[in-house]
Amino acid sequence: MNHAIQGVHCAAATPVTADGAPNLPAFVAHCHALLAEGCHGLALLGTTGEANSFGRDQRIALVEAAIAGGVPAGTLLPGTSAPSVEDTVALTAHAVSAGAKGCLLLPPYYYKEVSDEGLYRFYARVIEGVGDDRLRIVLYHIPQVSLIPISHELIARLMAGFPGIVTGIKDSSGDLANMIAMAARFPGLGVLAGADPLMLPLLRAGGAGCITAAANLRADALRLVWDGWNDPARQDAVAAAQARISDWRALSNSHALLATIKTMLARRHDDPGWLNLMAPLVELTTAERDSVWAAMARLGG
Amino acid sequence: MNHAIQGVHCAAATPVTADGAPNLPAFVAHCHALLAEGCHGLALLGTTGEANSFGRDQRIALVEAAIAGGVPAGTLLPGTSAPSVEDTVALTAHAVSAGAKGCLLLPPYYYKEVSDEGLYRFYARVIEGVGDDRLRIVLYHIPQVSLIPISHELIARLMAGFPGIVTGIKDSSGDLANMIAMAARFPGLGVLAGADPLMLPLLRAGGAGCITAAANLRADALRLVWDGWNDPARQDAVAAAQARISDWRALSNSHALLATIKTMLARRHDDPGWLNLMAPLVELTTAERDSVWAAMARLGG
Repeated sequence: MNHAIQGVHCAAATPVTADGAPNLPAFVAHCHALLAEGCHGLALLGTTGEANSFGRDQRIALVEAAIAGGVPAGTLLPGTSAPSVEDTVALTAHAVSAGAKGCLLLPPYYYKEVSDEGLYRFYARVIEGVGDDRLRIVLYHIPQVSLIPISHELIARLMAGFPGIVTGIKDSSGDLANMIAMAARFPGLGVLAGADPLMLPLLRAGGAGCITAAANLRADALRLVWDGWNDPARQDAVAAAQARISDWRALSNSHALLATIKTMLARRHDDPGWLNLMAPLVELTTAERDSVWAAMARLGG
Repeated sequence: MNHAIQGVHCAAATPVTADGAPNLPAFVAHCHALLAEGCHGLALLGTTGEANSFGRDQRIALVEAAIAGGVPAGTLLPGTSAPSVEDTVALTAHAVSAGAKGCLLLPPYYYKEVSDEGLYRFYARVIEGVGDDRLRIVLYHIPQVSLIPISHELIARLMAGFPGIVTGIKDSSGDLANMIAMAARFPGLGVLAGADPLMLPLLRAGGAGCITAAANLRADALRLVWDGWNDPARQDAVAAAQARISDWRALSNSHALLATIKTMLARRHDDPGWLNLMAPLVELTTAERDSVWAAMARLGG
């Protein structure tokens, strides 16, 4: 495998204070922990990272805090998109200048039922606005949230128009067939699974890895799958890791995903500050929290 | 009628250059024309104004250009929302400081199926972040685009929590029954119709006016309805104006709404630059454009 963007990436959650500001020291500590647990890269400021609930200045501050705190810039794959070209260029240019390995770009998500021509223009203007050959884009297909699917025709046009720049796609649709179809049709595109248990079957079909939420909790198991998936001698360990990933993914999905991930991280880091979310998301109820923590204990983590 | 925000407001379209920047002189000229045609106020930077396709700096520049160009700040009702509290506070505080009559605030629109509690927190944090008693908020209910409806329970809670601040709602759902129900339940809330032909029935049910897209073309007729709706001697003129509004509204809806409004403005202002849209929206085809222009000629405008 030799994609510009490949490997196990955590869709890193972002700790925040009770009054809605990023908790930068706790975030940096979480980034270091994720790399120590096995992540190749950190896809900070995605959907799990509540990127769109932070303003432009807060998002830039999070990237800068990670780098200033010793997280290698080359491990960072931040979400840098906004509904406007102007703000997307500002965030993306900053990340490229800071040395990020790539940028995860949603389509503009305010207007619905927009055309591929309109989406192409959006991405083209962002790429031209950034104007930096170091830019590596991972497209972000999450139609159940953005309501704006990224079609194969749009991918083909962007890869033809900007070879070497549009190098990956994160598919959070949960549709493994779509991921496999993209990997088959676009050999130069690194296809990253957005759901933890799908990384293994996607790797077997030519995919490039993952960007997932449960990696906040079980990066170790995902890394074990990544390292061993193609080694006949390690299939038992891979199967065991895959089962562990599925258990933790199921628990993270047992209530509202982002609130549950943060609830689990509060226990993991022994820090109740992790329970906070940015508006408009809200924390779990006390009963839900206790249930999640009890289930974590049963899973041995 | 005595609402903090009432009257005929145009959801002003925003002219842009071919490379995607606001055309500030053309915008200022359009604002002056709309006031001359009868608008009480200008709801710039809403959905029709492509607000979310402009970055934070572009949005601030548009408000400042209007005021510097002689448009009275007290006529302005800009859209100042973004998916994040931070950016919404920045845009809203700027508009309040500039003397705007109010601010139109979408709910945060990235995450779907969020709770009223989460939406309340978003608005509360924005209001507290702006921290200015001059702030007047018009909530923006456009669930077919934002996918985030604004419930009556949320309105009640916001009006109770921030009396005198949360003073209006724009309802772009097209659901007249919802508008009438809000006007009945919340006497202190100025309910503004988001569809031109609905202003008249809403006024008769206690509504406060409108914020509409076809006001870019037929503010004169909307103003005539506003001035005469309650005067028994002017009902013939009101009915004629209402018919004219419906004809123009239907034409603006004959193709993609925003592209059609801009196509109509290109003819009205005799300026092909008005044909441009911001990505991800695209202009009409040549055939569609010619059809719209021919229909405008038939309508006598």
